[in-house]
Amino acid sequence: MADILKGACIVGQSGGPTSVINASLYGVVRTALDDPNITRVLGAEHGIRGVLDDRLFDMGQEDAYELSLLKYTPSSALGSCRYKMADPDKDDTDYKRILEIFKKYDVRYFFYNGGNDSMDTCNKISKYMQRVGYECRVMGVPKTIDNDLAHTDHCPGFASAAKYIATSCMELYQDARVYNTGMVCIVEIMGRHAGWLTAAAALATYAGAGPDLIYLPEVDFDMDAFLADVDRVYKERGNCMVAVSEGIHYADGSFVSEAKTSATDGFGHAQLGGLAAILADAVKAKLGVKVRGIELSLLQRCGAHLASLTDINESFMAGERTVKNALAGATDCMVGFSCERKDGSYTCTPVLYPLSEVANAEKKVPLSWINEEHNMVGRELVDYALPLIQGEPELPREHSLPRFAKLKKVLA
Amino acid sequence: MADILKGACIVGQSGGPTSVINASLYGVVRTALDDPNITRVLGAEHGIRGVLDDRLFDMGQEDAYELSLLKYTPSSALGSCRYKMADPDKDDTDYKRILEIFKKYDVRYFFYNGGNDSMDTCNKISKYMQRVGYECRVMGVPKTIDNDLAHTDHCPGFASAAKYIATSCMELYQDARVYNTGMVCIVEIMGRHAGWLTAAAALATYAGAGPDLIYLPEVDFDMDAFLADVDRVYKERGNCMVAVSEGIHYADGSFVSEAKTSATDGFGHAQLGGLAAILADAVKAKLGVKVRGIELSLLQRCGAHLASLTDINESFMAGERTVKNALAGATDCMVGFSCERKDGSYTCTPVLYPLSEVANAEKKVPLSWINEEHNMVGRELVDYALPLIQGEPELPREHSLPRFAKLKKVLA
Repeated sequence: MADILKGACIVGQSGGPTSVINASLYGVVRTALDDPNITRVLGAEHGIRGVLDDRLFDMGQEDAYELSLLKYTPSSALGSCRYKMADPDKDDTDYKRILEIFKKYDVRYFFYNGGNDSMDTCNKISKYMQRVGYECRVMGVPKTIDNDLAHTDHCPGFASAAKYIATSCMELYQDARVYNTGMVCIVEIMGRHAGWLTAAAALATYAGAGPDLIYLPEVDFDMDAFLADVDRVYKERGNCMVAVSEGIHYADGSFVSEAKTSATDGFGHAQLGGLAAILADAVKAKLGVKVRGIELSLLQRCGAHLASLTDINESFMAGERTVKNALAGATDCMVGFSCERKDGSYTCTPVLYPLSEVANAEKKVPLSWINEEHNMVGRELVDYALPLIQGEPELPREHSLPRFAKLKKVLA
Repeated sequence: MADILKGACIVGQSGGPTSVINASLYGVVRTALDDPNITRVLGAEHGIRGVLDDRLFDMGQEDAYELSLLKYTPSSALGSCRYKMADPDKDDTDYKRILEIFKKYDVRYFFYNGGNDSMDTCNKISKYMQRVGYECRVMGVPKTIDNDLAHTDHCPGFASAAKYIATSCMELYQDARVYNTGMVCIVEIMGRHAGWLTAAAALATYAGAGPDLIYLPEVDFDMDAFLADVDRVYKERGNCMVAVSEGIHYADGSFVSEAKTSATDGFGHAQLGGLAAILADAVKAKLGVKVRGIELSLLQRCGAHLASLTDINESFMAGERTVKNALAGATDCMVGFSCERKDGSYTCTPVLYPLSEVANAEKKVPLSWINEEHNMVGRELVDYALPLIQGEPELPREHSLPRFAKLKKVLA
């Protein structure tokens, strides 16, 4: 048992928001407020920027009910940032400033809720504090719809986005085949480097109403093969639904979304509408059929009304375990999940992973889950993702519209 | 009381699908199956095309539970069409064929579920049958997310789409202001001529998390004024969210979505991504701020997981009342709604409107509900639409994904 460390804590949120990142925030804040060794709970506005700018909210002044609504409130309630910390060996300005703020508020706990980059930020801050001899426990709370953090079975936020995507695909499937004339429907899904979210569209396919074809960034994209795939499916079934990851790229590494020309399709004009529009244009030009490109855009990461209850509960747990572990002496770690799926049952156990191992690492969809033709994922994906999307929360509503948390955000 | 008319009925669906058009289908089918004077219930595949092609499903062979799931299944379960009937005085080929099919199956009731054009189709068929002396009762069942049918207070399908739009805007609002850098978010919403759906985004605004600016096709669009509006809001609030109807047009009547150039923005290249991308491009070029264009696309009309229970129940009622009224002798009518909103209470009464009066008429958002600057709608819209979106259905699910109706579709 480590020594008892008494002092304030700072919690911050970083990177792209999710439907459930605030459930983790609530897990941290509620647990910290309830523990006598944490003297004050401070929320950093816009992540580490709020620390640097001394913009810290006194979370103890928030109404308990409003705080509880964070479980159902999408996007980062404290505000987020995309701020890259310098290497402290080259430029320690930011770190000195953080130390100054930590001293000012007697901060002994720092909890940072984010993805790869945030774990890196955490790690750097922790190493710096150790070097200058300032006692402080630094912990990462995972979140990313991209699901690409190393070691952990999955990441808070992924499942709710996956559920939004699968449900939306199932509804689009009904809609896109309603006429007696066929249609190709191309759905663009987030994920620059890892195809987890796009692969989740296969949940709809296995439920009987999803994409016929799925393309991930884990493998190279070939425009000729794509057009031939669509042509074949359309001729066989009279309709074709496609899910594509925004990060699909040609064999030379260039993103299809940025392609001005390709050897086969010859469309070379400026594109505004993103990947779905580019592919829709290519299909229309080559096959001459009715095509609709649909970008799920920000909706997929903020669609809290379709959040997975499992995801909400696990996100809360990640926040709660982070604080409890830090109080017990842990530092330089991220709480991740070790899961077991067996005969239809699913268990999820929180586990600590060293920040140095999760920072800057990236987990992708296993190549063995992708079929030989590179246009579909296998049953493994369903077995993996289905337990994660289970359960519907009782959403707080006002006049049948969402009732999100309203924070006072009183500066400390 | 009219004479009892015994015979088969045909029900068909036409035009763009909605989240609840199948609730009306269920209202028709369930009521017709339960009445002894309707000898057989036939579902036309792809609307009137299924009649012309003799593709009629025997709805009596469907499983009762699967039929009940139609209340929660988006898109037109029987298939839809966009087939324009000729003027019978000029070309009566189709009408002769319909009469032939009616005689073949002893069809004495024809129920057609659709928007303006479908009411016109209904009307023409009815007049033809009267002229040739074939006894048959022809009724229209309203549906359209556009909410533009005349006389009726509102149309089945509108409220669920409105709820999807308002909820999505509220979630996007949380997401689009998460960073310490501002953003302009432009949401493109359906509606070529009537702005009801885009106006419904104001439900989010009045709930405290919606568009700052709303542009409808009821008034002319001015690009200079638009850019000045966005600039002002962005400077005042640090962010700006805009809802635009796909049908907004310049004073000369040309759609903004088809504009190649305008006097002020000077962007003249081919556009693929639709209106949201065009406006996002114009804002970026003029104001140099971060912009995101989001098209709600087909999602807004098939998002049954956000359907309004009020809308589902009213849609079912429209189908049920159609059959009961026809059995009682009514013909050449559409069931619409007469509603009262008073001191927070809302009542909806089904009323019959003559098809001749609803066919080809179009109801738009009253100009008095649009502000002087033409960039927002007033409280009247909220008072009108809020009662319609109330209530959440208990959605049938399998593994936390939607469980839609699976029809056998046995040909008669």
